[in-house]
Amino acid sequence: MNSMTDAKLSPGDTIGILGGGQLGRMIALAAGRLGLKCHVFCPDEASPAFDVSAEKTVAAYDDEKALRDFAGKVDAVTYEFENVPGETADILASLRPVRPGPRALSVSQDRLSEKTFLRDAGIPVADFESIDSQNELDDALTRFGGRGVVKTRRFGYDGKGQIMIRAREDAQDAFSRLGHVPTILEALVTFEREISVIVARGLDGTARAYDVAENVHENHILKTSTVPADIRSATAAQAREIAERIADALGYVGVMGVEMFLVRSGEEERIIVNEIAPRVHNSGHWTEDACLVSQFEQHVRAVAGWPLGTAERHFDVTMENLIGHDADAWHDILSDPGARLHLYGKAETRAGRKMGHVNRLRPIKP
Amino acid sequence: MNSMTDAKLSPGDTIGILGGGQLGRMIALAAGRLGLKCHVFCPDEASPAFDVSAEKTVAAYDDEKALRDFAGKVDAVTYEFENVPGETADILASLRPVRPGPRALSVSQDRLSEKTFLRDAGIPVADFESIDSQNELDDALTRFGGRGVVKTRRFGYDGKGQIMIRAREDAQDAFSRLGHVPTILEALVTFEREISVIVARGLDGTARAYDVAENVHENHILKTSTVPADIRSATAAQAREIAERIADALGYVGVMGVEMFLVRSGEEERIIVNEIAPRVHNSGHWTEDACLVSQFEQHVRAVAGWPLGTAERHFDVTMENLIGHDADAWHDILSDPGARLHLYGKAETRAGRKMGHVNRLRPIKP
Repeated sequence: MNSMTDAKLSPGDTIGILGGGQLGRMIALAAGRLGLKCHVFCPDEASPAFDVSAEKTVAAYDDEKALRDFAGKVDAVTYEFENVPGETADILASLRPVRPGPRALSVSQDRLSEKTFLRDAGIPVADFESIDSQNELDDALTRFGGRGVVKTRRFGYDGKGQIMIRAREDAQDAFSRLGHVPTILEALVTFEREISVIVARGLDGTARAYDVAENVHENHILKTSTVPADIRSATAAQAREIAERIADALGYVGVMGVEMFLVRSGEEERIIVNEIAPRVHNSGHWTEDACLVSQFEQHVRAVAGWPLGTAERHFDVTMENLIGHDADAWHDILSDPGARLHLYGKAETRAGRKMGHVNRLRPIKP
Repeated sequence: MNSMTDAKLSPGDTIGILGGGQLGRMIALAAGRLGLKCHVFCPDEASPAFDVSAEKTVAAYDDEKALRDFAGKVDAVTYEFENVPGETADILASLRPVRPGPRALSVSQDRLSEKTFLRDAGIPVADFESIDSQNELDDALTRFGGRGVVKTRRFGYDGKGQIMIRAREDAQDAFSRLGHVPTILEALVTFEREISVIVARGLDGTARAYDVAENVHENHILKTSTVPADIRSATAAQAREIAERIADALGYVGVMGVEMFLVRSGEEERIIVNEIAPRVHNSGHWTEDACLVSQFEQHVRAVAGWPLGTAERHFDVTMENLIGHDADAWHDILSDPGARLHLYGKAETRAGRKMGHVNRLRPIKP
């Protein structure tokens, strides 16, 4: 523990954000409300977060000089994506507090480290094995009953970098099709629902989990998050407790998304953690309107070393991502009194691109 | 009615804001959420709104070239203060839609025009007379029973530019003390409470008034706004209806603050309109947390020509301005789960300077 690790920001200080997409933009908007400045670092000149931030740096994430200049101008650093290169994080962490810390990044960037960390922390995960060759894959599949998902250890997202194996022929050349990179094999989980928990943990160790969201994906991209999830209240409490336990085990500071599967056997509901995202999370966008303190504000508070706010929820809600031309419906959405529109200011509408989201609110069902 | 007057913005378009203080800042934050860009025009290099806006122009309000360049880069223009010079508004209005329109500015900049407009529209106001000399003042005071408030017609704010006359000696040299400028004499109103209504009116003529706030001033600066005001529901409905009527009579587009006095005679409650502010208003900051759609978002929607949102309120609330060193309590405020902190990012704390505000929320009393 050194003084930099403990550093707290003051109003008027500057948060540096790596990544200039919609998540960085929403962090910056939340920071602005609290009187903090943001400085966004992103290689893409057309970054949506630039438009709502005091300062920007357009440079590559491995541009050491630009990183050092950036660190010199900010009071703490955070990031909106988990694939921040380790060296980038190390350079910045030597100069300024980086929150969440580099450990959260290194654990979550590698599926093997992530799963191993979770299992060691007593968190329920699917069985998994490290796979470094086609032979290892074939051997492991024997132990997994011939079924499983083989995933690259790094840089997978939105269903990319993984192959589902339901029969022996699915496994053929799988290691080569994934590019001869380190992978893991995970047991197939027959789940009833996908759920997630957004948890915030402050510099003082306080952890606050939001209510559980139930997520629906389309083409491997999140389509909707509905809160509350249609699960038992004891299961929901357990999901939140698991998320808080993970944050504690990592000594985490900031907001984290924890993706889980709900597995049912008869009346029994069981939770399996799928993955963690060391950042604000798409499945937490509902907090912007259904709670007084959004995940973005919680993240800003944590990164600043400030007290967390309440995670209390005041509405039932369904968040719907506006993907590609979904966003063309903005005018109708604005006309609906129960709908809260969020647009990201992206210049170009492309298929599969997240352009915004809408939170549809309902009174809390007693 | 021409096509510029009717112009509607699209997501990604730019709103130009004259004035870079906290009101401009909060407009920009609301615009950011809706995917709009802001370009702030302000002579002060240290303007809080710059930090959350895509573009800025640092220039004087009478710099015609800078105004024309600014107009060329934005899709509509609004402002955060009512003393925008008429010529500035005219230059901009010749190039881009200015919302609220120049008429709202000219009416509200001159207390005589304002009071005359209100009286002609059938809105209850205190008796008043135009005063252009000490002789006229002395004469008028005779008709007003020797009592009244003499106010400069232009540029008064926070109690500046006015003299209270309760006895003949108060009137002595009043005209000269106010600088030999055109003034008006208003009858003294013995009021029980100060209240205000924030009303939004869209390009399509829809008007939406928020609930009535009860305001407390200290040293002529707003200290708190509490909602609901402690008045009868019929009186509250009347106050909102008056605000909507004023907006309609002006053909107003945007958010307006209407300050009123509540006058009591026995059981009877009567409303007198004191003044209108053609902009988002300090007594409407409570809408940011107690409503889903804040006054800032309503203003952005109106300026963009978009549908207004609901003005429904979900909490009882007291907004407290953080003036000068009040803002030093930011850490305690953040620790209070019922308190929502807003800071303006002003570099220097000065006595009397609005540094932020806090909304203290309570469940709605049935």
